[in-house]
Amino acid sequence: MVDALVPDVGPGQALVENLYLAMDPAIRNFLNDNGGYAAPIAISAPIRGMILGRVRASGAADICVGDLVWGFGTWSDYSLAPVAGLIPIPHPQGDLADYLHRRGTIGLTAHYGIFDIAQVKPGDQVLISGAAGAVGSLAGQMARLAGATRVVGIAGGARKCARVVEDYGFDACIDYKAEDDISTQMRTQMPQGVDVYFDNVGGKILEAAIGQLSDDGRVAICGMISGYDERSAQPGPSNLWNLVVHSALIRGFRVTSILGNRPLVAAKLAQIDTWIDQGALRADYDVRHGLDAVPAAFASLFDGSNDGRLLVQLR
Amino acid sequence: MVDALVPDVGPGQALVENLYLAMDPAIRNFLNDNGGYAAPIAISAPIRGMILGRVRASGAADICVGDLVWGFGTWSDYSLAPVAGLIPIPHPQGDLADYLHRRGTIGLTAHYGIFDIAQVKPGDQVLISGAAGAVGSLAGQMARLAGATRVVGIAGGARKCARVVEDYGFDACIDYKAEDDISTQMRTQMPQGVDVYFDNVGGKILEAAIGQLSDDGRVAICGMISGYDERSAQPGPSNLWNLVVHSALIRGFRVTSILGNRPLVAAKLAQIDTWIDQGALRADYDVRHGLDAVPAAFASLFDGSNDGRLLVQLR
Repeated sequence: MVDALVPDVGPGQALVENLYLAMDPAIRNFLNDNGGYAAPIAISAPIRGMILGRVRASGAADICVGDLVWGFGTWSDYSLAPVAGLIPIPHPQGDLADYLHRRGTIGLTAHYGIFDIAQVKPGDQVLISGAAGAVGSLAGQMARLAGATRVVGIAGGARKCARVVEDYGFDACIDYKAEDDISTQMRTQMPQGVDVYFDNVGGKILEAAIGQLSDDGRVAICGMISGYDERSAQPGPSNLWNLVVHSALIRGFRVTSILGNRPLVAAKLAQIDTWIDQGALRADYDVRHGLDAVPAAFASLFDGSNDGRLLVQLR
Repeated sequence: MVDALVPDVGPGQALVENLYLAMDPAIRNFLNDNGGYAAPIAISAPIRGMILGRVRASGAADICVGDLVWGFGTWSDYSLAPVAGLIPIPHPQGDLADYLHRRGTIGLTAHYGIFDIAQVKPGDQVLISGAAGAVGSLAGQMARLAGATRVVGIAGGARKCARVVEDYGFDACIDYKAEDDISTQMRTQMPQGVDVYFDNVGGKILEAAIGQLSDDGRVAICGMISGYDERSAQPGPSNLWNLVVHSALIRGFRVTSILGNRPLVAAKLAQIDTWIDQGALRADYDVRHGLDAVPAAFASLFDGSNDGRLLVQLR
């Protein structure tokens, strides 16, 4: 934690007073030398992440002082950010925190993964890991909205599993911390096989899900939180042959691929707004307070102790 | 090797006098308890495989005595086979052996993999393992016909690599038996990355290729010959995260998925016939003779000592 002068704004930049910082697991990857899809974060450089705030100075014509924005900033009181990575919120709806969850990249990630990558269609049997997490809980609700006939979650512990079923409407939830073998639990919950597996965790759970794929099954890899701390040491799934047996596929994706496609993003966000208005898309928040709370908040993503979308509110 | 009476033909069956037996690596899987996409071959049951022969007795209206056919039979002098698995050859073109190679399932496998699964398009940089093998050599030639700007093969040993370049027109061939690290060889030969990897081998070569994928890269898994003998012990690729980084996908396929789609098969075979007429699709054969030659012929698929499509001619 360092004190520094608030920087001056250059052309194409904005200075944003941060109101919320989002704790995203993907940031863990940017701390590795070569793990992420973005440049590594240098030692002593500020951590990059999604923020929501108010513009205090602008070096671009299309972003004005006083605008509310969300997008790519830094874990600090003020973000000096390229305006290309900031999305204005001209008419805020509901809770501002929603723009770092359902109405922001989390909602877009779930929508893109369920509808475009996994292409969930009516009748599908869908399995989702990290089901109590922000992306997973939305993905499960969207799979149902896409017509899936059975939606099963995977989460750690009885309390989280209860939330997945009761709060997010999954048909069942597999507890990966339970003593029962994970593959056996999958077969019990999905005896007809897995048409779609939406993966947020990787590792042994991914391998088990590949083993349960049905014909033309689809795996959408969104995240691999189990491997972010020690990816190089982790062996991969030994059963990729099952992709041949079942004419199945595994596809990786990230929401940053579509953020530049403004019409697509607008269409997805409009559908999400409608679902929220209909009460069809529940979201929960775990809000901590103050910059001092950031290290423990971020770490809690990886021991599973968070309880909803993790945000740190600065003011 | 056992002697038995030639069986009687039942309804929907044909008795085929086998002229050629095809040595396919996939058969190795059917000898495992649970490795294949077809039922395991029981101990002391005849080995199932692709055959070409002449119908000697028929229990179905649409297959007549004297017809030439190719399709699913057994490694024996005569195949008693369901007619649904036999494809007649009313007007044989060229060498009969072609119907167990370019004009049969091998040609269809390469065509389906390159055009439908990997969706090779003009400008793609394509990498193909097992490039000296039957499927791989056709896949490379078809990738070029699809407009790929660079086609690189992988094969074992200098002699095979020379054939891949000189006989099948690949731009280069990586020798996986050479001392150089396979990933380094891939980077040297494909500095812009791999848009499509057509995989016949699995294992460490698959992992290396995943590491070289470019954005929107596609891996088509056709076979995993490296694992057929000991699949359960083989760890999978540890770098599936690269699928997320590059929005890439891995898709398994098998030609049996499309064999029932007669219009699609006819269209593909017609295109293959045209290419053969134009001299654009070279095929080589390694023909052994007599049932006694089968065990050694089949084994040579797995030590890489064969030299073209391996067939055993019975008469």
